[in-house]
Formats: sequence, C-alpha cells, structure tokens
Amino acid sequence: VKLLTLARDLKRRKARERQSLFVAEGVRAVEELLDSPIELRGVLTSSELPSSSRGAMLLEQLQQRRGLDLLEVNESDFASAADTDAPQGVLAIAAVPDRSLEQIPSDGAMRLLVLDAVQDPGNVGTILRTAAAFGATATIALPGTVDLWNAKVVRSAMGALFHHLALSSTWEALDAFLSARDVGVWGADAAGATVDSIATSPERLALIVGNEGAGLSAAARARATKIVSLPISPAVESLNVAVAAGVLLYELRPARSRPS
Amino acid sequence: VKLLTLARDLKRRKARERQSLFVAEGVRAVEELLDSPIELRGVLTSSELPSSSRGAMLLEQLQQRRGLDLLEVNESDFASAADTDAPQGVLAIAAVPDRSLEQIPSDGAMRLLVLDAVQDPGNVGTILRTAAAFGATATIALPGTVDLWNAKVVRSAMGALFHHLALSSTWEALDAFLSARDVGVWGADAAGATVDSIATSPERLALIVGNEGAGLSAAARARATKIVSLPISPAVESLNVAVAAGVLLYELRPARSRPS
Repeated sequence: VKLLTLARDLKRRKARERQSLFVAEGVRAVEELLDSPIELRGVLTSSELPSSSRGAMLLEQLQQRRGLDLLEVNESDFASAADTDAPQGVLAIAAVPDRSLEQIPSDGAMRLLVLDAVQDPGNVGTILRTAAAFGATATIALPGTVDLWNAKVVRSAMGALFHHLALSSTWEALDAFLSARDVGVWGADAAGATVDSIATSPERLALIVGNEGAGLSAAARARATKIVSLPISPAVESLNVAVAAGVLLYELRPARSRPS
Repeated sequence: VKLLTLARDLKRRKARERQSLFVAEGVRAVEELLDSPIELRGVLTSSELPSSSRGAMLLEQLQQRRGLDLLEVNESDFASAADTDAPQGVLAIAAVPDRSLEQIPSDGAMRLLVLDAVQDPGNVGTILRTAAAFGATATIALPGTVDLWNAKVVRSAMGALFHHLALSSTWEALDAFLSARDVGVWGADAAGATVDSIATSPERLALIVGNEGAGLSAAARARATKIVSLPISPAVESLNVAVAAGVLLYELRPARSRPS
C-alpha cells in the first residue's frame, strides 16, 4: 500500500522533485529500466500484466529480482496510480539519476540539444529518443520545459532517458558551463540561415530549440550567435519541434562522423 | 441537432468513408479549413469558443460566412461530438476532398511518401505536416494505416491535410501508378544502406515507411529496390517514424533543390 500511495503522489512534479523519484509505465519502459543502471524502488502490477506474453516474461523477470519491492494491486487501484492511458499492468518507481552539467564529456566533438520551454511531453520524449539515436552528448531542459521525468515523457522517450545524459539546468548554470567549455550556441527558428547553406559547424555546439507555439525565447535569442532554419514550403507554418530537432541534429552532426 | 448527430456519427471510420465527410476540431484546424478549398458542411460550437480572443475572432468569422450551418450546443453535447481531448469549443464538418493517384503531377522531380501500416494518428498527422513542409509531391496511405481523416490525424497535421495531396490507395493501384510513371521505390528501415552513403537518388522516388513496431511489411520489402537507413546509436532501437520520415525526406530531396 505504501508503494501505491507513493506512485499516486509521484504524478505531481513537486513530489517527483522532492523525493527524487519517478514512475515508468508500461512493459517496454520497465524492460528498458531493468536493463539500465537506474536504481529501482519498487514495481506495481495488475492482473493485466501477464495477459500478453511479453508482459508474462517481464513479470517472471521481476519476480526473480532479489530484494525488489513488487506488489500486485487490483485494476482500479492500479489505474489510480498510472498516469498514461495504457500502462499495460506494470509501473516501476525508480530514482532520478543524479546528473549535472559537469558530467558532460568535453573531449572532442560535443553536441548539446537545449530545450527552451518545450511543453508537450510526447515531443520531449521523442526529442530525447532522437538525441540519443543521433549521438547527442546531452540534452538540457531549461525552465519552462515539461519535467523530463513526467510519465508521458518517460514513456515516449522509449528508454532514452535511462542512458542518454538528459538533465535540467538554469540559464545561469548553462551560461557558465558553455563559456567555460567554449561551446558555440545556435538557435533553431523558421527565420534563419538555412542549414543547407552552412558549410561547417563548431566542433562544440549547443543547439537551442524553442516552444511549440512561441518558438525561441528572448533569452535564447540573446545567447545564440547564429539562427539556423530548415527550408520549408510557404504553405506550412512550421515543423513539429521533434522533427525539426531531428533533422538539425542529423545535418549538424560533427564532421568526423560524416562520410569523407 | 442533425449536425450534432452527424458529428457523433463521424467518429467512426466507416461513417466517414460512407458519407465522405470528416471532422476538424479546435480553433487552429478550423481556421486552416476556412482558408482551404475544402467544402464546409457545418460548424458546431460551445460557449467555450469565445473565451479565447482567437476563438472569439474565429466565431465572428464563422458568423459572417453566408449560408454556413452554424450551431451552438451545450458543453456536454459538444463533448459528446468531439473526439480529441481539448477541442476548444469548435468543430467543423467538411467534405473529404476527392483525390486520386492520377492527380499527382508527374513532370519533373517527384517525391512520394508511402505509409505502410503506420498506426498512430499523432505520428501520421506529424508526417503529413512534415511531408507538406519538405515539399513532398504526395503522401499515400496504404491499407493498415490509420484513416487520414481521423480527428487526431487532422489535428496533428496542422492544416497540411487540407492542401497537401494526401490520399489512400491499395498496393495494386499504387503498383500500376508507379510503374506507369517510372517511379523508383525505396524503403526505410534500420538495417539498410545508410543515407549518407547514397550519392544520388532517383528523380522520381517513392519512399515507404513502415509500422511503428513491426517496420516495413513483406509487401513493402518485395517492392523496394533499395532499403535506406539512418545511422543511429546502438543504444537506441529505432527512431520515431515521423522523425525518420522527416530526416529522410530532407536528405533525399531532389537534386535541384540542393545548393549547387
């Protein structure tokens, strides 16, 4: 019952921040969590879990895990603890990993993706998955961005949050870091230099993407030494932020990973 | 009341197909619809609409439109007709435009994006928005793909469905079209030739993207003369299909739109 109360409480960002815990829901997310170095605090299941063969395998794996606090609750209690629509009868409570800017490796090429008030959890999850896939060094969430440990972000990141260096920061801490490590700062916006006109990019680059509706904030514009854009049809107002981030991360990948 | 019954009925794909009508929900989608050549059948509103200034402006515009069947209903009736979570007090019923493969212009470069059982409506909407933005000639939905006129697809396409040539087709009709117009067929998959190793792409190209979980179908693999992939970190299983489609459409854009 303690685990159930805890899971319900962790739906609130404040509770997640105070306790440094988060919830991962669904078979796939819990599988990814088990394969990661992240510390598990407990797992809640419902009778729905073993109804799929993949779920049954996961349940077996959980039961064999020594010292794991594993609790089956009824469907309605489970639903009250889950935040996403189809949690598939399993949710895990785990410790938010202790991450800071200082952990970002600074030898060689660096690609930081900076989220400036990106608000949709599905977009942020997809961005984390994409940043991990394209080898970004880290993803940094600035104030105004949805909590990285929100259950919907965790789910749509498809495990990327557990191994990719994703963390929150203030502008002040980020400014100090970027300046100490000599990292160039670019912003992504519809009105900028089109990326196909850019021959080279800095070896260490932080790319800022902005809010879904408002775009880059004044704070971001003040820091960016270049605004880059993707050429799009005038019939379309903008790209989805996760798609734009994906294309730009790919286009601006460090020179050594391009074909010679 | 007839409009209310109709909107409720159109939540079902079969009803949309039988009546050749669809529903666009939310301020932005209805604004985009008004600016498009698509024929409006009627608009339902609730008292929520004028609560935002953009909503109030839209309501005024709707009231000034001659001959428009405009009906305000109470909040609970409105909610019963809406399919998405936050329809903002406005939904429009409109005619599905009459589109066929024959309408695809075949002079010059051609880029077709082919959806092979892509199932998530948010992904399909984002793909349509991206295809329109990157100047794809058309997007073709094969059987197994979510209905293009599903309310969530319409919403996440952000208006792209109303001007981009998006249509459904069978494999048989598509085969005949591709062969008659001499269009090359490539498939996107994690295991393929990485796109940065590809120097040139056919002037007329159909790119097939597959299901979120299963990837390309056997039918797609049988037709593709080349499988292209994006190089991703081994820590990540796959990219989101909308992100992958976006990067590939950008990377494989016709030569004449590249910088010389």
